[in-house]
Amino acid sequence: MENVNVTHYDTKDYIYPLNRNTLQVKIKCEEDTVSSIYIVYWNRFKEDKRESKLEHFSLNGTCRFYSTNLIFDESAKYIRYYFIIKNNNSILYYSPYGISTNLPKKYFEYLSTNVNDIFTVPSWAKGAIGYQIFPDRFFNGNVENDPALVEKWGESPNRENFFGGDLRGIIEKFSHIKDLGVEIIYLTPIFHSPSNHKYDTIDYFKVDPSFGDIEDLKELVRVCTRYDMKLILDGVFNHIGYCSPQFQDVIHNGKQSPYWDWFYIEDDVVNTDILNYECVGYYKWMPKLNYSNQEVREHFLRVGEYWIKEVGIDGWRLDVADEVDFTFWQEFRKKMKSIEREILLIGETWKNGSDLIKGDQMDTIMNYRFRDAIIEYFADRIIQTKSFMDRIENFLFDYPVMTHNVLYNLLDSHDTARYLTTCNGDLDRFKLSLIFQMTFPGMPFVYYGDEIGMRGETDPDCRRTMAWDSINGDVLEFYKKIINIRKNSDALKYGSFKHINTNTEVYSFIRQYENESVVVFINNSENDYTLFSELSKAKENIHVERINEGNNLESSRSFIVHLPANNFEIISIVRKEAELKINRIGREILNLNLLN
Amino acid sequence: MENVNVTHYDTKDYIYPLNRNTLQVKIKCEEDTVSSIYIVYWNRFKEDKRESKLEHFSLNGTCRFYSTNLIFDESAKYIRYYFIIKNNNSILYYSPYGISTNLPKKYFEYLSTNVNDIFTVPSWAKGAIGYQIFPDRFFNGNVENDPALVEKWGESPNRENFFGGDLRGIIEKFSHIKDLGVEIIYLTPIFHSPSNHKYDTIDYFKVDPSFGDIEDLKELVRVCTRYDMKLILDGVFNHIGYCSPQFQDVIHNGKQSPYWDWFYIEDDVVNTDILNYECVGYYKWMPKLNYSNQEVREHFLRVGEYWIKEVGIDGWRLDVADEVDFTFWQEFRKKMKSIEREILLIGETWKNGSDLIKGDQMDTIMNYRFRDAIIEYFADRIIQTKSFMDRIENFLFDYPVMTHNVLYNLLDSHDTARYLTTCNGDLDRFKLSLIFQMTFPGMPFVYYGDEIGMRGETDPDCRRTMAWDSINGDVLEFYKKIINIRKNSDALKYGSFKHINTNTEVYSFIRQYENESVVVFINNSENDYTLFSELSKAKENIHVERINEGNNLESSRSFIVHLPANNFEIISIVRKEAELKINRIGREILNLNLLN
Repeated sequence: MENVNVTHYDTKDYIYPLNRNTLQVKIKCEEDTVSSIYIVYWNRFKEDKRESKLEHFSLNGTCRFYSTNLIFDESAKYIRYYFIIKNNNSILYYSPYGISTNLPKKYFEYLSTNVNDIFTVPSWAKGAIGYQIFPDRFFNGNVENDPALVEKWGESPNRENFFGGDLRGIIEKFSHIKDLGVEIIYLTPIFHSPSNHKYDTIDYFKVDPSFGDIEDLKELVRVCTRYDMKLILDGVFNHIGYCSPQFQDVIHNGKQSPYWDWFYIEDDVVNTDILNYECVGYYKWMPKLNYSNQEVREHFLRVGEYWIKEVGIDGWRLDVADEVDFTFWQEFRKKMKSIEREILLIGETWKNGSDLIKGDQMDTIMNYRFRDAIIEYFADRIIQTKSFMDRIENFLFDYPVMTHNVLYNLLDSHDTARYLTTCNGDLDRFKLSLIFQMTFPGMPFVYYGDEIGMRGETDPDCRRTMAWDSINGDVLEFYKKIINIRKNSDALKYGSFKHINTNTEVYSFIRQYENESVVVFINNSENDYTLFSELSKAKENIHVERINEGNNLESSRSFIVHLPANNFEIISIVRKEAELKINRIGREILNLNLLN
Repeated sequence: MENVNVTHYDTKDYIYPLNRNTLQVKIKCEEDTVSSIYIVYWNRFKEDKRESKLEHFSLNGTCRFYSTNLIFDESAKYIRYYFIIKNNNSILYYSPYGISTNLPKKYFEYLSTNVNDIFTVPSWAKGAIGYQIFPDRFFNGNVENDPALVEKWGESPNRENFFGGDLRGIIEKFSHIKDLGVEIIYLTPIFHSPSNHKYDTIDYFKVDPSFGDIEDLKELVRVCTRYDMKLILDGVFNHIGYCSPQFQDVIHNGKQSPYWDWFYIEDDVVNTDILNYECVGYYKWMPKLNYSNQEVREHFLRVGEYWIKEVGIDGWRLDVADEVDFTFWQEFRKKMKSIEREILLIGETWKNGSDLIKGDQMDTIMNYRFRDAIIEYFADRIIQTKSFMDRIENFLFDYPVMTHNVLYNLLDSHDTARYLTTCNGDLDRFKLSLIFQMTFPGMPFVYYGDEIGMRGETDPDCRRTMAWDSINGDVLEFYKKIINIRKNSDALKYGSFKHINTNTEVYSFIRQYENESVVVFINNSENDYTLFSELSKAKENIHVERINEGNNLESSRSFIVHLPANNFEIISIVRKEAELKINRIGREILNLNLLN
């Protein structure tokens, strides 16, 4: 037991300020035998030793990830601390030099809270629902600006073809977006570029002519603002387009070009046959930019600034953020936040994004770890409920708590198969996934067309034109209802998150905010379950146990949840003084033939 | 065994470039049963799957910390990988979503190597030996500039008194420093300040008048340069002095002061009785600076720049670096390195310094974890050899490999008791510690006076005047010899480091560089040991076993090490083509009555 496996370092990953007076402390403990962990802490200049019990992500089960908030009556500083690890038989102490049975003599330490140590994210983004649009495929609002060759709407997309979608199209179909209930629109790139996806930019200061012009973009921002919605653009700053004047200059003028050092070129002239310059995915059309060149940095700081100041966009989604010079992102964040404190910075990454969200680069990341987990659990059903819980807890622990409400949680994107296709068309699995996405902390993002039941294999098939003529009304209604439920619940938008162990295949969690709690039950299995839930006195405690017969007890302090296979239940519990209101807010959706 | 405890994230802490073509990968494994770990890796755009075995810090024993370097024929990018963990009975796979007995389907990923991702440190600093001076106490070279009240040299220091030491004193006694053989001089603060320690600065652009002037400093730099030595100043940028014009202005003019926002002040006027401003250690003389104020940032960037450009200093030791706004350090590094690429930045920290040495802030840190370990092992003898090895391996694993040769490894400083006092005057323990310090990777720093056998309890007693009249010649000779041995061995300066498990109390390690290996044996116990060492064919393999009788075998491929209690042996093995030379380079020191 002296080798109990705990991990904590007194570094920013494990102890950081939420504000000047509050620290969050995190610790990982791999042993199931541990019953509780406490932190003992004090200011080294004061006699104020205190003890606090750590919590974890599970209301009534085991979990490896513990944390607590320490609150001080001044800016947190000079804090020394150690941990006490208890199980049934023993008490152990954990300090910088390991585990021992004796009180430690060396302590972990947290020294000082500077303003910039406090990682804040835009408040408007917390819990908000987003909608991702691939502009060429959403709606053709202006045929005048179409590219030379345009496929008929509804034809199959390939890597090269165009469909004429544009900014006016988004404005024209805005009521669809508004009625869906989303709060943020994110457009894949719209700057001047020869391709349909526009990830190979020619000019970052110009809207692509086939999408419209800056006035169209300004109008889109105005429309968004009218409905209290936000607009996010795609910043493709890792690489530039082959056809950009900068790269063309280098091709033609070689080392004489003033842009030579913008790139990583091996020889004295550019060879575009046997590529001798770095590019994205060895793809000649996307030469990689060299951010140790000050001019490149300044160019893209200007781009970032321009669209905020000129048009008033609300955020940048930053393409392949994990491939770009991190010192540039540090500078970029500083500059953008100085222009507009509430600008949202979202980094694209497909892996563990910890490096990007330590407070000096992005506000959040595209959370593909979320998507990986839901595919394996809901779509493919190849992992068990317990494993799924572990996968969720893992990224919640890795990522700083202030990012939890802004994680870009997605089912799919323009770079993946559409989620309904991933589910093999199984609407049950699709809807259960959506229920999870829309009740989980973060920013749930809808990929245009998913809400009307569109399908598609991976890129380019997932970029089909919006099927305005074959909307699946059942799916659309389902989306609207669950989005509405989320927007009407502060607990679902901002609430804390804890897993509930149901001792069945049923996946469950509780979210709490002020006097509201929402409990979500998802039966992602082919078996029926009936759960008996008792609310205990303590606000946070819900006792759940499986009962075998259909005991129909329902009172103000307990309720029964019948969960047929592939079904779910969302229950809201609101306390007002002595009164307790329990509502099945998910039932409404349930009636919508979830079971087909 | 499926729960084998390994830790690796595909984040910068665990995978990072050494240069554009080489990645270092690190993994921690807590199980003793694991026999080996392999990494399987490939470029996701190529069919080039390769496998590499990971090494650890131990030549012939167990160790929890594994790493390897992956070398590519282009800039490292798009690398996918997973680990294979083998023990006698099973093979397990480790990937982002955990341990499994099946080949993983999801992989760790490393995406791109940008120039700024490569953490480089000044090459001149690697393995160099430093000397720390507290100027008021080193030598009084100019009585004209003495403070008003000066104690007699040799009297007891207290928190307030002065002794008249100055820059001319350092210049005058330079031959002592030069003869000692050190290569870097670090001065605690020398800028204008009312105190003897000068950590409460009045004017960062002025040498304290009692220490001399800028011309004296320039001369000191010239003298250093003549002998190929470097000079480092102390940058106290976390706080300013109470007597500084900035803080005085705030005291007198309150919120009207242009410096009001330089500080953290709670009310509308400064209260210097019941302190209402943040200061270091609640100590009124050191008000903390607010680095979210752009003027403060610019002021200290100018200070950093001024002394490099004006005088040509070689580095900054940055006081309480772990209490200062980390975004300022990012800016400071960028600015200082743009002025002088080979400037050395050393952060003061007493704890795990990982946050400071990720490549965007410091080059290295004051390694108090090193000091904690040697005190417990050598001075107090309260931990076993195995625990000591573990403590050393812990910080080597935590800190990026490029910092290993520049870690500021200290026995003591102006903030601690002198190491001979920590050893209770036991010269054996003192010398064994020194042997370790001087043969271990990093920058070993000598605190002025230690080399002549000075003693002293913690601050202020450790800041006694240099005892020029009572030099312990034995200790001084011992210092000179071991420094000379280190400077004459590239293996000791730059070599790799691996522990050797001797199966005895004897602590041993090997350092290797090109064709030279140095093996160090330290018997930090009261028992005598004789070890038989056999060199195996492979360059890196040394087989060590304990033999009980004094078998005096010595040949070109094996040697005997007799290690009486409290003794050591340093053996150099040099290969030149077929020839193998084994020298007891430590023997010379041994004869100097190590055993008193």
